[in-house]
Amino acid sequence: MKIGVYGLGRFGSFWAGAIAKNTPESEVVAYSRNEHPLPEGVKRASEEEVLSADMIFFCVAISSFEAVLERVSGRIKKGAIVMDTCSVKTYPAKWMQKYLKDDDVYLVATHPMFGPDSAKNGVKDLPLVLCPIEGENEAFIKVKELFSSWHLRVIVMSPTEHDLQAAYSQGVTHFVGRTLKKLGIESTLIGTKGFNSLLQIMEQTCNDPMQLFYDLQRYNPYTRKMRKELSNAFSYVDGQVEAVEEPEFE
Amino acid sequence: MKIGVYGLGRFGSFWAGAIAKNTPESEVVAYSRNEHPLPEGVKRASEEEVLSADMIFFCVAISSFEAVLERVSGRIKKGAIVMDTCSVKTYPAKWMQKYLKDDDVYLVATHPMFGPDSAKNGVKDLPLVLCPIEGENEAFIKVKELFSSWHLRVIVMSPTEHDLQAAYSQGVTHFVGRTLKKLGIESTLIGTKGFNSLLQIMEQTCNDPMQLFYDLQRYNPYTRKMRKELSNAFSYVDGQVEAVEEPEFE
Repeated sequence: MKIGVYGLGRFGSFWAGAIAKNTPESEVVAYSRNEHPLPEGVKRASEEEVLSADMIFFCVAISSFEAVLERVSGRIKKGAIVMDTCSVKTYPAKWMQKYLKDDDVYLVATHPMFGPDSAKNGVKDLPLVLCPIEGENEAFIKVKELFSSWHLRVIVMSPTEHDLQAAYSQGVTHFVGRTLKKLGIESTLIGTKGFNSLLQIMEQTCNDPMQLFYDLQRYNPYTRKMRKELSNAFSYVDGQVEAVEEPEFE
Repeated sequence: MKIGVYGLGRFGSFWAGAIAKNTPESEVVAYSRNEHPLPEGVKRASEEEVLSADMIFFCVAISSFEAVLERVSGRIKKGAIVMDTCSVKTYPAKWMQKYLKDDDVYLVATHPMFGPDSAKNGVKDLPLVLCPIEGENEAFIKVKELFSSWHLRVIVMSPTEHDLQAAYSQGVTHFVGRTLKKLGIESTLIGTKGFNSLLQIMEQTCNDPMQLFYDLQRYNPYTRKMRKELSNAFSYVDGQVEAVEEPEFE
């Protein structure tokens, strides 16, 4: 089986390497506009070759995905299983259905809930979301089996359910991480365990490209509401603290 | 050596138990207004008995400490080493100096940067701040040796330096924890590692009494500025996200 990875940014490069490592019986080919270094076990290929694979993962920025789909429409191998790995699911699933509807391919939306930082010690037991946007057909079962063989924790849900849950988990985490980075907190000798953990969250979320952060917030239909609620919670807590005058020391 | 603990709330109870465990050659006596359960190795005692110990730790709410000092002033054993364990240091240090100035006692301000959650697997290598408010005298050296014998990481700094660093570490952590609790984030099957860590921070900060949270924010001279900066950082990041229109899907 030939598996193609379209896009070799921070995530795509990690993902191509993970496929090569966890599915050694497959041939992994990857295409990227830029000359990113290749992970072990992955062969650099032309766009054509990646589009002729049996399974194709699109690992492009959420905000670029629609344009990429328009570009590749009509050029993918018949019978291929086409997947995205975007951190939001509603729009990418709709885009795949819109642009590939006349292509004779199977569509599955996926979201590996991890990346190079959180999977640095392996992918075992990490969560991966699968959205059966064309139902739980033969292709879907094949994909599910592939990821189960990696010992991932495969979770099946709709794009809407994914985005709602992700807004209040991954969306909150990245927003807090970027906010703390802007505040400029730094390691201190007197850091509590909780603070050191918060620093780590900040560092890991800020290791991801800024574009991923914006896309996560902008292309998830529920994050604006989450941010508004987070802002209200902030003001509520701040108001409670300020409700009593600060002490004065003579 | 007799060590007295004044106050058996969540922290005082943990602290009395930690002393008994790590300084087994001492007699640990504790006084509390309420009938809190006693940790292992700790003897319940009257207020008088605790005030007659060789070393006395005040483990009372920051906002109660001034009234407690007024109450015990003139009643502490001569030559005793008197310490507080408050999570802020500027005010408590000044209060001890004000109310105990005519008592023939030694004063050392301390802040163990951990509690029952973060020290559940022992105190080794955890940070403890000592403020030598009367200089690094004999009593200060004795206290420093005591904590070093527990294998704590003893850090010496002024109350001002402590409060400044704590505002931007412990103060931020507790504020974020309480804000996330108010937002109502919950465990989800698709939680990333970062999100699960954030949930844990929320749970641990919210295990502490609400009074500690308010006192941490209200009695640290630098937390109001920190909260204002955190609010500005939040608005900045939110503004960047909103700067581009959300995508519309036809």
